[in-house]
Amino acid sequence: MAGNHFGRLFTVTTFGESHGIALGGVIDGCPPGLELSEADLQIDLDRRKPGTSRYTTARREDDVVKILSGVFEGKTTGTSIGLLIENTDQRSKDYSNIKDIFRPGHADYTYQQKYGLRDYRGGGRSSARETAIRVAAGAIAKKYLKDKLGIEITGYLSQLGPIELAPVDLSITNDNPFFCADAAKLEALDEYMRDLKKSGDSIGAKVSVVACHVPVGLGEPVFDRLDADIAHAMMGINAVKGVEIGDGFAVVEQKGSEHRDAMTPQGFTSNSAGGILGGISSGQDILVHLALKPTSSISVPGETVDINGQSAEVITKGRHDPCVGIRAVPIAEAMLALVLMDHFLRHRGQNADVCSQTPVLPGNLSE
Amino acid sequence: MAGNHFGRLFTVTTFGESHGIALGGVIDGCPPGLELSEADLQIDLDRRKPGTSRYTTARREDDVVKILSGVFEGKTTGTSIGLLIENTDQRSKDYSNIKDIFRPGHADYTYQQKYGLRDYRGGGRSSARETAIRVAAGAIAKKYLKDKLGIEITGYLSQLGPIELAPVDLSITNDNPFFCADAAKLEALDEYMRDLKKSGDSIGAKVSVVACHVPVGLGEPVFDRLDADIAHAMMGINAVKGVEIGDGFAVVEQKGSEHRDAMTPQGFTSNSAGGILGGISSGQDILVHLALKPTSSISVPGETVDINGQSAEVITKGRHDPCVGIRAVPIAEAMLALVLMDHFLRHRGQNADVCSQTPVLPGNLSE
Amino acid sequence: MAGNHFGRLFTVTTFGESHGIALGGVIDGCPPGLELSEADLQIDLDRRKPGTSRYTTARREDDVVKILSGVFEGKTTGTSIGLLIENTDQRSKDYSNIKDIFRPGHADYTYQQKYGLRDYRGGGRSSARETAIRVAAGAIAKKYLKDKLGIEITGYLSQLGPIELAPVDLSITNDNPFFCADAAKLEALDEYMRDLKKSGDSIGAKVSVVACHVPVGLGEPVFDRLDADIAHAMMGINAVKGVEIGDGFAVVEQKGSEHRDAMTPQGFTSNSAGGILGGISSGQDILVHLALKPTSSISVPGETVDINGQSAEVITKGRHDPCVGIRAVPIAEAMLALVLMDHFLRHRGQNADVCSQTPVLPGNLSE
Amino acid sequence: MAGNHFGRLFTVTTFGESHGIALGGVIDGCPPGLELSEADLQIDLDRRKPGTSRYTTARREDDVVKILSGVFEGKTTGTSIGLLIENTDQRSKDYSNIKDIFRPGHADYTYQQKYGLRDYRGGGRSSARETAIRVAAGAIAKKYLKDKLGIEITGYLSQLGPIELAPVDLSITNDNPFFCADAAKLEALDEYMRDLKKSGDSIGAKVSVVACHVPVGLGEPVFDRLDADIAHAMMGINAVKGVEIGDGFAVVEQKGSEHRDAMTPQGFTSNSAGGILGGISSGQDILVHLALKPTSSISVPGETVDINGQSAEVITKGRHDPCVGIRAVPIAEAMLALVLMDHFLRHRGQNADVCSQTPVLPGNLSE
Repeated sequence: MAGNHFGRLFTVTTFGESHGIALGGVIDGCPPGLELSEADLQIDLDRRKPGTSRYTTARREDDVVKILSGVFEGKTTGTSIGLLIENTDQRSKDYSNIKDIFRPGHADYTYQQKYGLRDYRGGGRSSARETAIRVAAGAIAKKYLKDKLGIEITGYLSQLGPIELAPVDLSITNDNPFFCADAAKLEALDEYMRDLKKSGDSIGAKVSVVACHVPVGLGEPVFDRLDADIAHAMMGINAVKGVEIGDGFAVVEQKGSEHRDAMTPQGFTSNSAGGILGGISSGQDILVHLALKPTSSISVPGETVDINGQSAEVITKGRHDPCVGIRAVPIAEAMLALVLMDHFLRHRGQNADVCSQTPVLPGNLSE
Repeated sequence: MAGNHFGRLFTVTTFGESHGIALGGVIDGCPPGLELSEADLQIDLDRRKPGTSRYTTARREDDVVKILSGVFEGKTTGTSIGLLIENTDQRSKDYSNIKDIFRPGHADYTYQQKYGLRDYRGGGRSSARETAIRVAAGAIAKKYLKDKLGIEITGYLSQLGPIELAPVDLSITNDNPFFCADAAKLEALDEYMRDLKKSGDSIGAKVSVVACHVPVGLGEPVFDRLDADIAHAMMGINAVKGVEIGDGFAVVEQKGSEHRDAMTPQGFTSNSAGGILGGISSGQDILVHLALKPTSSISVPGETVDINGQSAEVITKGRHDPCVGIRAVPIAEAMLALVLMDHFLRHRGQNADVCSQTPVLPGNLSE
Repeated sequence: MAGNHFGRLFTVTTFGESHGIALGGVIDGCPPGLELSEADLQIDLDRRKPGTSRYTTARREDDVVKILSGVFEGKTTGTSIGLLIENTDQRSKDYSNIKDIFRPGHADYTYQQKYGLRDYRGGGRSSARETAIRVAAGAIAKKYLKDKLGIEITGYLSQLGPIELAPVDLSITNDNPFFCADAAKLEALDEYMRDLKKSGDSIGAKVSVVACHVPVGLGEPVFDRLDADIAHAMMGINAVKGVEIGDGFAVVEQKGSEHRDAMTPQGFTSNSAGGILGGISSGQDILVHLALKPTSSISVPGETVDINGQSAEVITKGRHDPCVGIRAVPIAEAMLALVLMDHFLRHRGQNADVCSQTPVLPGNLSE
Repeated sequence: MAGNHFGRLFTVTTFGESHGIALGGVIDGCPPGLELSEADLQIDLDRRKPGTSRYTTARREDDVVKILSGVFEGKTTGTSIGLLIENTDQRSKDYSNIKDIFRPGHADYTYQQKYGLRDYRGGGRSSARETAIRVAAGAIAKKYLKDKLGIEITGYLSQLGPIELAPVDLSITNDNPFFCADAAKLEALDEYMRDLKKSGDSIGAKVSVVACHVPVGLGEPVFDRLDADIAHAMMGINAVKGVEIGDGFAVVEQKGSEHRDAMTPQGFTSNSAGGILGGISSGQDILVHLALKPTSSISVPGETVDINGQSAEVITKGRHDPCVGIRAVPIAEAMLALVLMDHFLRHRGQNADVCSQTPVLPGNLSE
């Protein structure tokens, strides 16, 4: 309950600091009989890992994951799966200069106050490096969802600073360093990021995730609605400050006659709801959008205080992403996979007899 | 785990349908020795209850709450608190016409598919009527937070359709039927709503909540960050489609030098973070914004299907709020109170020795 | 997490004090489509209720239960079920004399120390009166287990003080006031209890419960083994001081060659294990035994202290069971039903595909 | 929720099979500021590890534990602690002969039925080898309980087959291979075990654990009583078939006047309750007793079936403990420490203000 545990039936428990020995975790509740190898996890880890383009941190981590248990002769056994990723490129001396001051916009101050002490090296546990294990865990969930249920989860960058990016072609998101599905904007992105790096500043971003072929019925009213649990999962990603389902904040200015998705024998005619009605999946695509703040680790000097409350100036050197939103794409996919997986097992536990029936409607018409 | 349970140390478990016998719940984990009476709960219930203005549903429910246990000689005993609100104005015949069809934008279809059957009367368990118990539970949390920790939680309507509403004077929110803090806009709101009612349509809204004097240290990294749990709580309110903390989606276009809140010996100089850093409260005001969709229960005819998948038309008669966002204000306050209360107990459980120390910084300068 | 919540997927949350307004609870996670009425719950409540024989407390409570939600047109809907039992025969003045002293062997002292105050009337929340709601909740689980899975759960008194009682004929347990399955001992029990009542003292007892036709596969290793969760459920019944599965403490003197239950193509040839291997049900009968202490509420004077730590003498008047073990029989059945129900849903959630297969072996040969 | 997770506020999540790559786990919720090193954990691991005497399995494992996170500059940081123990002496070929048959008295059959497949090497996840991580986790809890609260937890062997062992001198339990506190019986134990080994059979045992200086107030009524959670923890240890608190099954024949522990201004005059009243610690010593069955892995031939349900004979070769009860002593201590630690944090979370007050009574008079 100290916050490093996620899920109810399909659970993930993680540990590890940015500059510690290793990151790791335990996945509990994975159904038996799923074909699984380290290679299945490595694909997404490689998408998230640092040092792959000039737009991400220069820290080089191979992020090689080991499966320590729970898989026997190539299949999951139903018992807990231990995961381990060793840290290899820690440069802790980079951080000794910030030992006694609080970097503004970071967790330094709040960790110090909450716990009375902190591992200041690279932000310790508060570093987004921790998300590597989420991505590995999410890859297991993604594999089950795809192999057994046909669910596909795809994320993409939908805005970077002022540049809006449409989901023109989701098949190209893994072919460019921005997870961008809008080929026409790639040059603009490149130029924007080059200028940004020169200025030593950072920029916010918007990330979107879509899940297709989700069965009807996932989500537990009243408090554990599917959208509520997605919001929890997404707002729990480092730097996220906003979460939307379907039309999101645009609904504030919508009328009921405009917002509600009509139903026809052929399916829903629109998807303002983002695939969730009354907290339960409707069979339409699930649509989620996240707002990620610009990282506060920049070389622009900033005003702060030290651990004694005295004035200080901070310039973050270290190695940082100028736009943390970019690498958040595989993380957001992983978190959505974890939520869907958990809710699938919960739904099946309570409603196994019902949930095998054919739904009244097909999904959205566009499928 | 079927979704009607909220929280970890301060928990709320609820039951009850829109047109059933009663709503009720159990609050578990309330510290002993808190002075508590039914009147403390009734204040917020009266703010939420239907039938108080011409802008809300015409259903009349007194929403009188009874405390059945857990309070002895005017004080909480530390044992579970049973709450009961009897339904008095159910008009179930209003709903017989929608027994066999699915209202678009409602949970009818997803409940039917998830469970294989449903209580169709007024939406059954999916009705927002269920939130009455959340408000009652939240009132207990609010009282503890205020009496023992000095925390104050205030919600207000920040936008209704196209009309933006600034937090000019939070002290007036309870003096008008809109929970509006912007006196200059009251007439425009009134006019807008009158026109809307005539059209038989409904409108979306934005609601904001502020918590002042929150101590530093609440929130559990990694997954149960304070903001993640707030997002879970808020997205779990009926009709909510988006949640923001602090600057929210505006961060997408912000630069790091602009977003990060500087720290000075006098406190933070701004509050873009919305009072949360690294998932832990910083001592600044906590700022949350929600987007609420327009209700789908409108008298404008809509296209749908019946339980056999055949085409049908629906006109919702019944009694409905043209803007469900308005009455969501006390609900959002209640949910924020529940999250803060739960995290206060969790923090104290793990870090009791540390959390009694004086923080390095005061809260935000504006206080 | 304050202890009034039981289970993971099929959950029970309760409230209510011995001399409060009412007892109640919420059952969450019941699968939809189960035929259920108040009469189904009342049967077991009537078996547990006080005042039915001269061997139980003279307090008269009808223990009439109301279902407030979660059932529509005679069937469960899959949403939370609210239960309520009003207290009718509270005689709180009986207890004013013990307001300021701690009854030895009771929870008075520990509640006072834990919470700083207590509802002293009849023990408040610590009274076994609270178990009425457990029995009602258990009746729902029992009905599902029997209707859908064919599982039958039967409890009986297996020892009262020095009188050992064999499970000669389980069909007679509801026909005598002792839940005794050993007709030859009824007269001896009657005589023993008459003498005991005269002496003003009380006596311990042993209760046994059997579950037949349990499918193979229930129970989650490592920590939530089926036996571990049964032990938790049983030791949580008021006055229980010991729990055994299968041969229980007799295994201390057994050899491996003697203890292990041989397996043959026709099934197991014995049941020392009590139906659980490696924490998972084996398909054999589940056998559980409990030791219940004699109630400390007796008219024999006892030495104690008051709330200021000063010496005092206590004679409990009130109305009490001379052997609380007797009425524990339906409570133990209810708790076993709750554990099996919860584990059935958990197992089905994770292993739905596997768990529908026919097991290699039938259950025990004796069936 | 798949069973590899323990606790609420101080939690342990584990993974690893008998013949897999490694065992490991995550401890979450440890308060910050506790001095902790690997040496603190190794002490108890060495007490439990195999191969230390001729009375335990010949498998040689050094059980060297690594702390991978959560400790910085010698102190816990409040974040999750990752633990790892690599397996070094796996001889998996020993087990190929039992790949297709079910060893009677083992989890082979139930795992196969539950999951549809199993890691048969040394019992896979069902092996008691998994308890190494529990012991490591328990050592952290023990250190906190001792350093911060003065609680001491001591286990001892209280019976081995027919030989009863009194707690004559708890200081000698670590000086003999039996964890025996009764020096006069050491020779008899030695002789008994020598004869047993020759016969190729195994024997049951009784283990007892005492916790001294436990503060009043730990335990959450109604369901999560301290004794209920202890029973859950203890019955979850491999091979345990019975759990007693205080007088345990002896209460069946006790009278109320005999059982209830009198209270005097100097403290309780006896401890039949075993330190728990109404599910809450009373300040007296907590007394727990466990019954452990004889291991079923013996060289005496046994009747069983293979995975096709056909008759088969089994002789377990491998390397096994003739009395698994002996090595259960440090495991039982660890589990009691985990329960007390968790309940201490839960109690402090809800009742921090009350729980710092001086109790009315000292503990038991014998202290």
